[in-house]
Amino acid sequence: MIGVGIIGYGYWGPNLARAAAESGVASVQVIADPSPQARQRAALRHPAAKLVSDVDQMLSDKTVDAVLIATPVHTHFALAMAALKAGKHVLVEKPMTETVAQAHELVEEAARRNLTLMVDHTFVYTPAIRQVSELVQQGELGDLYYYDSTRVNLGLFQRDVNVIWDLAVHDFAIMDHLFGQAPVAISACAASFVAGSPENMAHLTIHYDGGMMANLNVNWLAPVKIRQTLIGGSRKMVVYDDMQTSEKIKIYDRGATSNDKPYEHLVSYRIGDMYAPALSSKEALQTELQEFARAIESGTAPLTDGLGGLRVVEMLAAASRSCRLRGHPVDLVTLKEAS
Amino acid sequence: MIGVGIIGYGYWGPNLARAAAESGVASVQVIADPSPQARQRAALRHPAAKLVSDVDQMLSDKTVDAVLIATPVHTHFALAMAALKAGKHVLVEKPMTETVAQAHELVEEAARRNLTLMVDHTFVYTPAIRQVSELVQQGELGDLYYYDSTRVNLGLFQRDVNVIWDLAVHDFAIMDHLFGQAPVAISACAASFVAGSPENMAHLTIHYDGGMMANLNVNWLAPVKIRQTLIGGSRKMVVYDDMQTSEKIKIYDRGATSNDKPYEHLVSYRIGDMYAPALSSKEALQTELQEFARAIESGTAPLTDGLGGLRVVEMLAAASRSCRLRGHPVDLVTLKEAS
Amino acid sequence: MIGVGIIGYGYWGPNLARAAAESGVASVQVIADPSPQARQRAALRHPAAKLVSDVDQMLSDKTVDAVLIATPVHTHFALAMAALKAGKHVLVEKPMTETVAQAHELVEEAARRNLTLMVDHTFVYTPAIRQVSELVQQGELGDLYYYDSTRVNLGLFQRDVNVIWDLAVHDFAIMDHLFGQAPVAISACAASFVAGSPENMAHLTIHYDGGMMANLNVNWLAPVKIRQTLIGGSRKMVVYDDMQTSEKIKIYDRGATSNDKPYEHLVSYRIGDMYAPALSSKEALQTELQEFARAIESGTAPLTDGLGGLRVVEMLAAASRSCRLRGHPVDLVTLKEAS
Amino acid sequence: MIGVGIIGYGYWGPNLARAAAESGVASVQVIADPSPQARQRAALRHPAAKLVSDVDQMLSDKTVDAVLIATPVHTHFALAMAALKAGKHVLVEKPMTETVAQAHELVEEAARRNLTLMVDHTFVYTPAIRQVSELVQQGELGDLYYYDSTRVNLGLFQRDVNVIWDLAVHDFAIMDHLFGQAPVAISACAASFVAGSPENMAHLTIHYDGGMMANLNVNWLAPVKIRQTLIGGSRKMVVYDDMQTSEKIKIYDRGATSNDKPYEHLVSYRIGDMYAPALSSKEALQTELQEFARAIESGTAPLTDGLGGLRVVEMLAAASRSCRLRGHPVDLVTLKEAS
Repeated sequence: MIGVGIIGYGYWGPNLARAAAESGVASVQVIADPSPQARQRAALRHPAAKLVSDVDQMLSDKTVDAVLIATPVHTHFALAMAALKAGKHVLVEKPMTETVAQAHELVEEAARRNLTLMVDHTFVYTPAIRQVSELVQQGELGDLYYYDSTRVNLGLFQRDVNVIWDLAVHDFAIMDHLFGQAPVAISACAASFVAGSPENMAHLTIHYDGGMMANLNVNWLAPVKIRQTLIGGSRKMVVYDDMQTSEKIKIYDRGATSNDKPYEHLVSYRIGDMYAPALSSKEALQTELQEFARAIESGTAPLTDGLGGLRVVEMLAAASRSCRLRGHPVDLVTLKEAS
Repeated sequence: MIGVGIIGYGYWGPNLARAAAESGVASVQVIADPSPQARQRAALRHPAAKLVSDVDQMLSDKTVDAVLIATPVHTHFALAMAALKAGKHVLVEKPMTETVAQAHELVEEAARRNLTLMVDHTFVYTPAIRQVSELVQQGELGDLYYYDSTRVNLGLFQRDVNVIWDLAVHDFAIMDHLFGQAPVAISACAASFVAGSPENMAHLTIHYDGGMMANLNVNWLAPVKIRQTLIGGSRKMVVYDDMQTSEKIKIYDRGATSNDKPYEHLVSYRIGDMYAPALSSKEALQTELQEFARAIESGTAPLTDGLGGLRVVEMLAAASRSCRLRGHPVDLVTLKEAS
Repeated sequence: MIGVGIIGYGYWGPNLARAAAESGVASVQVIADPSPQARQRAALRHPAAKLVSDVDQMLSDKTVDAVLIATPVHTHFALAMAALKAGKHVLVEKPMTETVAQAHELVEEAARRNLTLMVDHTFVYTPAIRQVSELVQQGELGDLYYYDSTRVNLGLFQRDVNVIWDLAVHDFAIMDHLFGQAPVAISACAASFVAGSPENMAHLTIHYDGGMMANLNVNWLAPVKIRQTLIGGSRKMVVYDDMQTSEKIKIYDRGATSNDKPYEHLVSYRIGDMYAPALSSKEALQTELQEFARAIESGTAPLTDGLGGLRVVEMLAAASRSCRLRGHPVDLVTLKEAS
Repeated sequence: MIGVGIIGYGYWGPNLARAAAESGVASVQVIADPSPQARQRAALRHPAAKLVSDVDQMLSDKTVDAVLIATPVHTHFALAMAALKAGKHVLVEKPMTETVAQAHELVEEAARRNLTLMVDHTFVYTPAIRQVSELVQQGELGDLYYYDSTRVNLGLFQRDVNVIWDLAVHDFAIMDHLFGQAPVAISACAASFVAGSPENMAHLTIHYDGGMMANLNVNWLAPVKIRQTLIGGSRKMVVYDDMQTSEKIKIYDRGATSNDKPYEHLVSYRIGDMYAPALSSKEALQTELQEFARAIESGTAPLTDGLGGLRVVEMLAAASRSCRLRGHPVDLVTLKEAS
């Protein structure tokens, strides 16, 4: 049983605390939040936990083996670094840090101290993405051609990050997990249609070695909520619609092939069956916390480790740079070397 | 009653011929196609029409006032130019020509001869786009923010044009009609996943003066057919789903506004009613042919005139150039001056 | 090649004529319709066919082996009987006749003369129902529990038949084909909400030996068009949505079983995968006409023979009687004996 | 502020307790449940409440003004009667009682003691049904023609009540609220496909004076979850789809009218716009508890009072009797007189 401390009891912290309490692998020892109201809410739900206003009180607590950080992005680096230096394992909200350099530092610090550094890329632990991941690894989809995602809705406008850091980060984390390779370049265009707000709409194109492409459409100012991803492969194709209550993942035995004859180049189509596998109903956060516990206990890397968190921050940074260049593609190789 | 000749009786020609015959404003005088099988099919459906293998026989026919050209793209320029030079009005398939220079020449030739030059941008004449156009013109949507279109399906792979010239052309025509302004720059990335075939997937970002953006996602290799466009405005937003048999156009009274207070910048949301206006069931081709007849008889420009056709070809050419530059944005102003 | 005559060239006749002409197994020899306008339309589409105003001219024509009857219901019996007496095979629109007695007479007349009598239960020949039929015959669904159909839309109000004879007849034909047994009783309630019109809304419950039930909801006065059927079996269940352009048939590996323990009766659920088989794109009418030709040539019964037509008319008659009895269930056994 | 006691802390009780605690009009004083585990869960969520195993301890508690009963159906009558006799106001789960006679007794007892007796017909308090109710009362739908509901899913099989008492009760409560009149007769057929279980599938037809009809399709053994209701009126029609996360209520300006000319009876259709009003996001239970408080304080009848509960139980009893008669319609008038 791992003793955990929760830093931040605002919007997401209560979910982490509840999930930890129900996980069977962790006990909530300490909850830290500067707001008295937040601590009061925490006390009602977690009467056995110690409530503190200051993080240092948590970091010096011997019953705390690991901290879960659910605070605004700009505080992630300092809090995670302090926790690592206090010898605590760390699970931090996505995006891991504000800059690539910070991400590198955290990864190095954790490695030096043999501590687990994990990022809360929650989608990776959903039954839907677990299923897609299996399909990819078993070669069911064949060669991957593209990943096309529409993630739009009305609100919530964030104050400190734009729509790329708020929504595209989910796709970056999923792509990092599914594809097993970093992209070579990213183009992105973003716009703000609400005066004084961060960009609320963006389109991103991500290039991979070998020709695979990804396209992301993220928007806080859409009339309807859409969470739809098409994944194309040479053997099969997937439609992942997260708004469906059932049949979130549909797998299509469809594709096209060329007959390759020199003088009469013709493309033929394969239109086969579709199937929608029954998905587990296990909560993603439970799977994630069990993975965190497994990594801590075994001393091996978790599925969404600090390096994954770093790669996602690199993608976010490249996308931001491309936006400033009005969509000019930004190479990730260059960025990596520069970082 | 306008006497028309149909050039090309392959896939689309029969639709034009049928629509002309049923339009009440045109009579089908001559049909030209080099294939004996095509002429035989034409004879069964249009027993009163003269059937010729050679276009010249049509162009010298006094009963033909106007020609409708439904042939492969690379033949459009020569056929349209010949028809104009023979004193015929012209309605030509989209895209109007293969190059911007050719499009300019056709526009000038038609102007010189006071002939109607019109492009078959069919979508502009659909009840759905007529409705959206009205909303835009009446200011119902407020300032336009974005146009976001997903136009994907499995096949049909074209042999001579890529997916941009085949599918994105529809959106370009719609955008040209709706927005009343040409874009300033286009970024596009395309990929081919079937050996030896033109690009089958592309993503385009189109920039307008004043910050409006458009994003197009076109694909011949998708598992499902999607025809969905989101149009965002400051007052209202539209979802146009062309796969629906009813309720193709939904108008949402939704949006976000900033309170503009200096120290506590907050965004508030407006979530109002949705309505789906009943749309006319009139066939787009009928509306289009009546517009062609109206333009010819009045000597005024049709809704989708040669200049519109030229603007769409300019957009296609800019997109193609951006693809070759791996997504680097291509200014349309530059292109215009260079052409 | 079978020489066919088409009786009636109004709404459905042109489809039968076109399908026959394209079938490769039939040639359209004669088309009969009293309306000069209808004959004129027929002449344009079928220039090689003889056009007559009077059916007798068709029935005495030696080139006509079989007649396809697409006229109002009240004329079916007399026309089909005359055709059989003239030695012609008959394919008649559904419902086959207005009364059970008439249906018996036609079946007997056809049997006496060794002629093929077939009813145009088109849905039985659709790829969707062919697929469901295979699933049932292969035991994929297990024991059949229920058939639940919603078939509603706005219009078209018929003048001479009510909504049961117009819409429920489709389900009766499908059920007759799928279940291989006649029902034991039918309850039906109908109502008319448009003054002076036949009943436009009805609900029917159909009871089968062994406990299987069917429920039909038919309505000409619904705001939206729904064509949805749920079929429940002990092993699998089917959702058939005819409004979908793809994935019309979805097969669910779902169900419930009782543990049968005496003191703690518990029901457990099976929630497995769903799959949607790729369906043939072959037109139902083509399959149907080929079946008609096969039956004529082999002298064996077609899939939807006169006896099936008779069973469907019996169901319609029982439903009508139950409506007059305000929903009191009407036994079909009694009805059969009485007829 | 009303002091409330919750009887039963199993599946639904926690929702009532939470809603009461958040309502601003009630305080949770006592929670009664014989299970120590249930009381322990209650203690965590409601630390200020007194926890008792025996209902008598609650009924003698002076701080309890009203009790909320969330126990199995067969216990409703005795518990509600005891509470009324102890001078407590009562809000009881639906269905109010097992028999019509019991329902009468409760209504009379509450009237005699001037206590509020209310039934938890939750759907009546949902924003969707509030909206439909307004439309009906303002005459927007015109004369009501029909109510057609499909309420099917896989599980949960109940042990002590069948699918009519479990699912159709929701529609009965909605209909009782919307139509302002009791039906005249009910036909119902039910079947059980899981050995030893109560009936899991049923179809009901409900007749009203003036020709209005309702049809209910309820099923615990369906492959998919459907919650769809069509409501037809002479002026407008409603589609209520409770599975939608937005646009649950769509209002169609559609209908049909007869031209009433003697010799050429023709029906014409009106196909107008659809709109989907923005619905409140207020939780139904909050609205319901506020209505309970309002009724108690004002001494006037709540929206879903004991008489409504009685009418719903009468409908359930009539439906059960019709099932035993294999669908023979059961008059409600007779039942009322007999009860």
